[in-house]
Amino acid sequence: MITKASVTEAYTRIRPYIHRTPVMTSASIDEIAGCHVYFKCENFQKVGAFKARGAMNASLKLSRDQLSRGLATHSSGNHAQALARAAKILGVKSYIVMPRTAPEIKKRGVRSYGGEIFECEPTLEAREKTLAEVMAQTGATEIHPFNNYDVMEGQATCAMELFEDVPNLDVLIAPVGGGGLLSGTALAARYFSPTTRVMAGEPDLANDAWRSMQSGKIEPASPPISIADGLLTSLGDKTFPLIKEHVEKVMTVSEDEIKDALRLVFEKMKIVVETSCVVPFAALLKNRSDFRGKRVGIILSGGNVDLKKLCQLLG
Amino acid sequence: MITKASVTEAYTRIRPYIHRTPVMTSASIDEIAGCHVYFKCENFQKVGAFKARGAMNASLKLSRDQLSRGLATHSSGNHAQALARAAKILGVKSYIVMPRTAPEIKKRGVRSYGGEIFECEPTLEAREKTLAEVMAQTGATEIHPFNNYDVMEGQATCAMELFEDVPNLDVLIAPVGGGGLLSGTALAARYFSPTTRVMAGEPDLANDAWRSMQSGKIEPASPPISIADGLLTSLGDKTFPLIKEHVEKVMTVSEDEIKDALRLVFEKMKIVVETSCVVPFAALLKNRSDFRGKRVGIILSGGNVDLKKLCQLLG
Repeated sequence: MITKASVTEAYTRIRPYIHRTPVMTSASIDEIAGCHVYFKCENFQKVGAFKARGAMNASLKLSRDQLSRGLATHSSGNHAQALARAAKILGVKSYIVMPRTAPEIKKRGVRSYGGEIFECEPTLEAREKTLAEVMAQTGATEIHPFNNYDVMEGQATCAMELFEDVPNLDVLIAPVGGGGLLSGTALAARYFSPTTRVMAGEPDLANDAWRSMQSGKIEPASPPISIADGLLTSLGDKTFPLIKEHVEKVMTVSEDEIKDALRLVFEKMKIVVETSCVVPFAALLKNRSDFRGKRVGIILSGGNVDLKKLCQLLG
Repeated sequence: MITKASVTEAYTRIRPYIHRTPVMTSASIDEIAGCHVYFKCENFQKVGAFKARGAMNASLKLSRDQLSRGLATHSSGNHAQALARAAKILGVKSYIVMPRTAPEIKKRGVRSYGGEIFECEPTLEAREKTLAEVMAQTGATEIHPFNNYDVMEGQATCAMELFEDVPNLDVLIAPVGGGGLLSGTALAARYFSPTTRVMAGEPDLANDAWRSMQSGKIEPASPPISIADGLLTSLGDKTFPLIKEHVEKVMTVSEDEIKDALRLVFEKMKIVVETSCVVPFAALLKNRSDFRGKRVGIILSGGNVDLKKLCQLLG
């Protein structure tokens, strides 16, 4: 389904619409971590997150006819903005189902790209029902945030770029929520850097991917209490099989470990990242003895931070 | 004193010890500012600020004999760390006079480079007296934070890099405290991009450079109440003449304008910068009608932020 050639094609397809994000390093971070850390900075990506890649790739692969009826999704996060942006670039409509509790800043983001918002109750059931109604009314095509091969293929371009810029990575660690980025990353490693071991970072309090790896089947999400609010979703039936096959392990971290990693990235790297995005780095720090002297890639997946919330967290 | 050739030599001299920092841009910042903004990101510099350049250049220009007796300065800020780092690289001692009220994080930074700290009362008089004593005892050479031609020459390499990366800048705006960065920037523009107009940004509450430009002589510093705590110093007798000759104007901004600019840089650029460092960007935003459609360089001079203090400020 997703092949080496198709990832390369996806890269060419989305290249005009995304940033090739920089890889950043820091001597003091390396000293603290005891290894060589290469941060792939998707916080600098369009819409502030890797989601711009998958949404753009999936949208560009639709037929003119499909596109003309618009794009739809339910999302309260970065995928919502990414899809609204893709629709705007392609000159078509986007219909975004969001829980009425979603932060105003995210809604503003969607509207700034011309996305039409449909509010619903903050339950998965209400979201799916509202999305089905919107699609029935409009004929729009759903672009799922992660459980969609074209989205996963788009997310794979992130690791592909990293492998081009930093050859011979021993390990690459990505965050895991629904698994779109992680499955894409694992495939990219298989195709472009087969000796690189792929691992994931996940909060203890939202450890459904870890549990799924143990049980061998998709485990339901935990209650939404972790501060890593982008990683609360459970895996999808398209993402999990690839993760099971190609990801070596999921490492989990505590909320305090996430906060410490966040503080380090701010103070040493001087960049702004989301709580969810430092989870892989927190996992590296927690298990640093396993990585001593190695070349470790970390995907910093996004940087859409509400400064007030951040300060409440770290203050 | 500082010539085109000497700046180029300074660049070659310090190149092994500093980062060539990236130039960052943002479509949404450009839209807000109404012009093309190129941020020279010295927050990613070694020790987190442009000060690494000047301290390194001045240290490398000392004789072996001078070096062997060590380096000394009084500074509560980034220059202290920059000088301690230069001394460490050169394998010599550094003696740093700091007010006893300086933040613990800054002291830790100096110590981490092996610098020896001499605490004094937080007055200029006490600082100068303590420094004189330390120099008498040790024979160390003073490297002044800004009123030193070799330091200014080192700071000039920052704008020189920017002109190489971004040709045809219409305007370049730097912050002004003691004027080391600003005078170096103005000379670099004269030598490497003579059509670029150089301007400065300064807080309303610490507007001594603005006042000096009006009166034609060095005006004393204002009471230290601005949140831009890196820009509180008055100009030096070596920096002011160059600024008077080569800087078109100093633009001043309110504390609220500084906070708004800081929030924008965090939320749109996803990078961490010091309060003092966004003052030029705040000045650009305040006067945006003067810059419509232009190519404007902004030096983001440093990123050493105490997250707690930042949150108190913006919370």
